[in-house]
Amino acid sequence: MQPQQKSVLCVGLVCLDIINVVDQYPTEDSDTRCVSQRWQRGGNASNSCSVLSLLGTKTSFMGSISRGPVSDFIVSDFSRLSIDSSLLSWVSGTTPVACCVVSRSNGSRTVVLYDTNLPDVSLEDFSKVDLRNFHWIHFEGRNASEQLQMIQQVVQWNSSVPPDQRVSVSVEIEKVREELYVLFNMADVVFVSKDVARNFGFESAKDAVMGLSSRVRPGSALICAWAELGADAIKDGVLFHSSAFPPMKLVDTLGAGDTFNASVIHVLSQGGDLQEALSFGCRVAGAKCGFHGYDEIAQTFGPEPVQT
Amino acid sequence: MQPQQKSVLCVGLVCLDIINVVDQYPTEDSDTRCVSQRWQRGGNASNSCSVLSLLGTKTSFMGSISRGPVSDFIVSDFSRLSIDSSLLSWVSGTTPVACCVVSRSNGSRTVVLYDTNLPDVSLEDFSKVDLRNFHWIHFEGRNASEQLQMIQQVVQWNSSVPPDQRVSVSVEIEKVREELYVLFNMADVVFVSKDVARNFGFESAKDAVMGLSSRVRPGSALICAWAELGADAIKDGVLFHSSAFPPMKLVDTLGAGDTFNASVIHVLSQGGDLQEALSFGCRVAGAKCGFHGYDEIAQTFGPEPVQT
Repeated sequence: MQPQQKSVLCVGLVCLDIINVVDQYPTEDSDTRCVSQRWQRGGNASNSCSVLSLLGTKTSFMGSISRGPVSDFIVSDFSRLSIDSSLLSWVSGTTPVACCVVSRSNGSRTVVLYDTNLPDVSLEDFSKVDLRNFHWIHFEGRNASEQLQMIQQVVQWNSSVPPDQRVSVSVEIEKVREELYVLFNMADVVFVSKDVARNFGFESAKDAVMGLSSRVRPGSALICAWAELGADAIKDGVLFHSSAFPPMKLVDTLGAGDTFNASVIHVLSQGGDLQEALSFGCRVAGAKCGFHGYDEIAQTFGPEPVQT
Repeated sequence: MQPQQKSVLCVGLVCLDIINVVDQYPTEDSDTRCVSQRWQRGGNASNSCSVLSLLGTKTSFMGSISRGPVSDFIVSDFSRLSIDSSLLSWVSGTTPVACCVVSRSNGSRTVVLYDTNLPDVSLEDFSKVDLRNFHWIHFEGRNASEQLQMIQQVVQWNSSVPPDQRVSVSVEIEKVREELYVLFNMADVVFVSKDVARNFGFESAKDAVMGLSSRVRPGSALICAWAELGADAIKDGVLFHSSAFPPMKLVDTLGAGDTFNASVIHVLSQGGDLQEALSFGCRVAGAKCGFHGYDEIAQTFGPEPVQT
């Protein structure tokens, strides 16, 4: 199989976001009619799958889910965007749902998440994945000690196949949680969030990638996006930077980080270089903040962009 | 068919309530994890069906709904409680969803409803109902001018069949909306809400039923519940009253009114008298406020109450 026929696999969380748009944030104990309401498949890895697919990269999602009306919606939404969901782990419990209230008057977003603590994808689940189907696997850092062993399986696989059949690995370290930091030196590409960077005491993306570069393996890229200040990366001591590309009007910033990660992976997994990937990531993520959801990404950045 | 084999039909709204229980009401622009989250079928007529069924009365629901994951949940919940949903009107659009935030610290309930304005059950839909299957039809007052014509169809039917095959009609006038008030003189039993009563200038249930009694037909019962003050009724100038039966601890007041209505209909449709119906309504509605949802009604008041 040629790399272009293989898929990018994203491993992580999927949930349902119910997004209520209101004129202003409701006062306690009131009854409010919202201006609009939409259901959106959420979760970092799941969002990144959407963006990869809209950009034209074949993609699969792996994560835990429980049967019910929420999973019906999620599975049909994966299918709508041609994302392979055959690696979903069906577990008993409840699929997480977040009720989000977005205020039109000031753009605030208030999130009430019901985290149902479904068991994460296990090493055993991952062992069943046929690595011949993938040329890139992206892990949303969650159950890091188990994810570390999954990545070791990929490393072992890579050492047993010809170079053109190797699988690249990326990880996202988004949450400020000590146990995730073992993942820094486990991947070809590491995305570290502004939150984590700040928690390490860094006040810019450049300082963060420089300061954290000793944690990643030689030859690996470390990338940090910093909202309206763009993104920085480091690889073997060489620094890269892209400025941000903000939209005319900020409409919806939910999932902008997931959009950035996916766009970077899209370029790198097709053999593009790090500077190119960084710029493309900032460009797509910026554009995404100018519209609701992700679907419009295809029109401007997809395999057959629509001329407007 | 004997009355006991026939059903009570409730016509009105069905929606989905997503109930998020939090420690305290979230401040704007924050991220909150909720203590628990549950999905509950909502809507006045739909809730009354639940209670009727839990009390052991055969019941059917009629209302508008749109296909999607919400309707999957709703239909399966109707079925879980043995409520016939074959008279659902399937229309295009979106089934309404309410996101409710219930605070454990002070019991407040904040509701954000997305009212999708689905078309109400039409006269044409109602004309297809086989009235032989029902001995009682309850209307949640909504599209009153059309509901008035539906009731006229029932009146016409009643004049053409032997007395033991006649269908009783009840209406609920809950919302403060002038156009609903034509329904006062259209039913055998009229439920008027505290809100509407107050809007007419009455400050107690007794004053309300006395003051509004001229609006109902001779021989009809007019009933008004007033939360912790119990309920009052009037029929042919005779007054009835029941005190409230509050639970040890207020847990969940959502749907207490729908519970009261259903419990009254349950008694009256089995030939019980108005005083008996009023007391039973207050008893079941009070008990309901002591637990979440409706299911526990069956244990205490159902056809085979569980001895605890």
